[in-house]
Amino acid sequence: MNQAAVTYELIKTDKKTGARLGRLHTPHGTFDTPMFMPVGTQATVKTMSPEELKEMGAGVILSNTYHLWLRPGEDIVQEAGGLHHFTNWDQGILTDSGGYQVFSLSKLRDITEEGVHFRNHLNGEKLFLSPEKSIAIQNALGSDIMMAFDECPPFDSPYEYMKTSVERTSRWAERCLAANVNPERQALFGIVQGGGYKELRELSARTLASLDFPGYAIGGLSVGEPKEKMNEMLTYTTPLLAADKPRYLMGVGSPDSLIDGVIRGIDLFDCVLPTRIARNGTCMTEHGRLVIRNAKYAHDFGPIDASCDCKVCRNYSRAYIRHLVKANETFGFRLTTYHNLYFLIKLMKRVRSAIKEDRLLEFREEFFESYGFNKPGAKNF
Amino acid sequence: MNQAAVTYELIKTDKKTGARLGRLHTPHGTFDTPMFMPVGTQATVKTMSPEELKEMGAGVILSNTYHLWLRPGEDIVQEAGGLHHFTNWDQGILTDSGGYQVFSLSKLRDITEEGVHFRNHLNGEKLFLSPEKSIAIQNALGSDIMMAFDECPPFDSPYEYMKTSVERTSRWAERCLAANVNPERQALFGIVQGGGYKELRELSARTLASLDFPGYAIGGLSVGEPKEKMNEMLTYTTPLLAADKPRYLMGVGSPDSLIDGVIRGIDLFDCVLPTRIARNGTCMTEHGRLVIRNAKYAHDFGPIDASCDCKVCRNYSRAYIRHLVKANETFGFRLTTYHNLYFLIKLMKRVRSAIKEDRLLEFREEFFESYGFNKPGAKNF
Ligand SMILES: [Zn+2]
Ligand SMILES: [Zn+2]
Repeated sequence: MNQAAVTYELIKTDKKTGARLGRLHTPHGTFDTPMFMPVGTQATVKTMSPEELKEMGAGVILSNTYHLWLRPGEDIVQEAGGLHHFTNWDQGILTDSGGYQVFSLSKLRDITEEGVHFRNHLNGEKLFLSPEKSIAIQNALGSDIMMAFDECPPFDSPYEYMKTSVERTSRWAERCLAANVNPERQALFGIVQGGGYKELRELSARTLASLDFPGYAIGGLSVGEPKEKMNEMLTYTTPLLAADKPRYLMGVGSPDSLIDGVIRGIDLFDCVLPTRIARNGTCMTEHGRLVIRNAKYAHDFGPIDASCDCKVCRNYSRAYIRHLVKANETFGFRLTTYHNLYFLIKLMKRVRSAIKEDRLLEFREEFFESYGFNKPGAKNF
Repeated sequence: MNQAAVTYELIKTDKKTGARLGRLHTPHGTFDTPMFMPVGTQATVKTMSPEELKEMGAGVILSNTYHLWLRPGEDIVQEAGGLHHFTNWDQGILTDSGGYQVFSLSKLRDITEEGVHFRNHLNGEKLFLSPEKSIAIQNALGSDIMMAFDECPPFDSPYEYMKTSVERTSRWAERCLAANVNPERQALFGIVQGGGYKELRELSARTLASLDFPGYAIGGLSVGEPKEKMNEMLTYTTPLLAADKPRYLMGVGSPDSLIDGVIRGIDLFDCVLPTRIARNGTCMTEHGRLVIRNAKYAHDFGPIDASCDCKVCRNYSRAYIRHLVKANETFGFRLTTYHNLYFLIKLMKRVRSAIKEDRLLEFREEFFESYGFNKPGAKNF
């Protein structure tokens, strides 16, 4: 059955690394990979408009099933004609499964083979989410890419627990596949789990591969483990995944990890990092993080990043943005958010160019040096 | 001396009312009048970008001297090359004098002939504002239209107090004129005060007229007095003002008062009303106020206002905007703000067409009926 809603076209592999240049075809347009996806948790990428996202080159955004299920409810989104119509976004949309929120937001939960009983983090109401329920919600939302319902246990979970969990997540993945009523319009990606255990990553990857998903995600990383550990697990895991399917590393958005993920064969990333730090007035620049509230920028009439060609950097000064952020003005957060997202989307564009020229490792070295990642004790973003 | 920075061109007077169709020429562009000015208190019209304001047809915006003086400080704005450069807005800017904020935000104040001693409403710091100081700040900000520093006493102040205040405000106005170091680039408007006393309005208007300002504002109205009283004072006051100068009614933004002000010869208005209520989820529509949070809009996939052709009404549904507003998402407030400002700017456009066709009174009747202003006990906006 190769009528998958989403197909991956491999254009070129970097000669020196596992990096891949590709293209993802979705029912709502095609975009180049590697790509970074902005996160629109509540059916909006915080502070941004769809026009702005399109303008900065975002070909796909992520939305959260758990949040939309609770508010406004998937029935309303479906009645609107799906998320694309509801939000006025005509390009790709990926929805997660809700699993991550169930395990990270809810303290009281009960995991059974059938699914998870837990309490609504907003009002304490009793809820139940299962593979079938998650897919039913995602089918109602109408995303182009849906994610299988999985358990994401803590990275340091004991081996025995992790094994039980991985096996259950694989059984859940099969149930998700069976539950998808729109396979020709909505592609379902499986999620490889297994924490820091190579044999469990392999078990997970092989089982999911046998189910022939149109794409695979790697979950359970970037959850607090050391960066070296994440890279090690990626190096081990991506070769286990089919070369003709896209690979998505969940929850990663710091520039160093994006580049290191691409080097290990990752095609898609998402993270709230650029938008979240923007709302605190922190900007990503070619020379590392810039905290716009700092007094030293009060009289600085240069752009956030002199090497950035985004709309914000072409028209607004650090002094003005600092004023807006200090005065808690929405427009300030629009400007920092726009710049940060542009920065990461542009970074992926530069990464794609580097792959084309087989100089990704050199690009990594230059970028790390400039951003400050090579300094001892460098911060993670 | 007719080198005024801002000049008013009277195009046509309505045959049945005092309404005027005109054009205001400023150092940063020309716009048609009557016009409604969006308010950008802290050097930003809350949630909006300059591009959006331009797109909706705003030819001039207002900024607050008091707020910018305290933060970021007029020195920083001046260093940036003035407010236009600082904010990336290349059309008209009007700054108020700071007087209104001194009298409305500060409880402890001491008015002398020289000026006003008061405390910073943010941190209690002792401050002093005078005609010379206000103009110096506005000169540093570089607005196209500056306002004279005035006292705005409560509408129900006793006659004797109001007379003393009006006379002092006129002396202050003369000092403001003398203090303006950029008359060829920044026009200074005088402000007629006098509360509800016709003889004091006349005294104020005649004294200011003798000083030959390039424009006049009417202050001290829309401060809680009955609408009939405001209209009565306008009917009395505007004929006292030169026909070849623009007339600006300060702090008025409810659709009925805008139309009633135009009928009495007003050319310019400003008010935080449309942006403030937008941030509470309230929208202005052809059929009156719409509170988007209401449960009845949860499944309503129509636009905020079916007769509005703004970008928001063309692309987003009540159900989506309700979701965003309830989820406290910035983009929801961007959408309601955009629509409300567009609504008032478009209303003024319709008012200008009606003047052109000498049917403003008929337009008033139709609009009041449709908006609901003719209903008994109709709300003020
Ligand atoms: Zn930028
Ligand atoms: Zn509209």
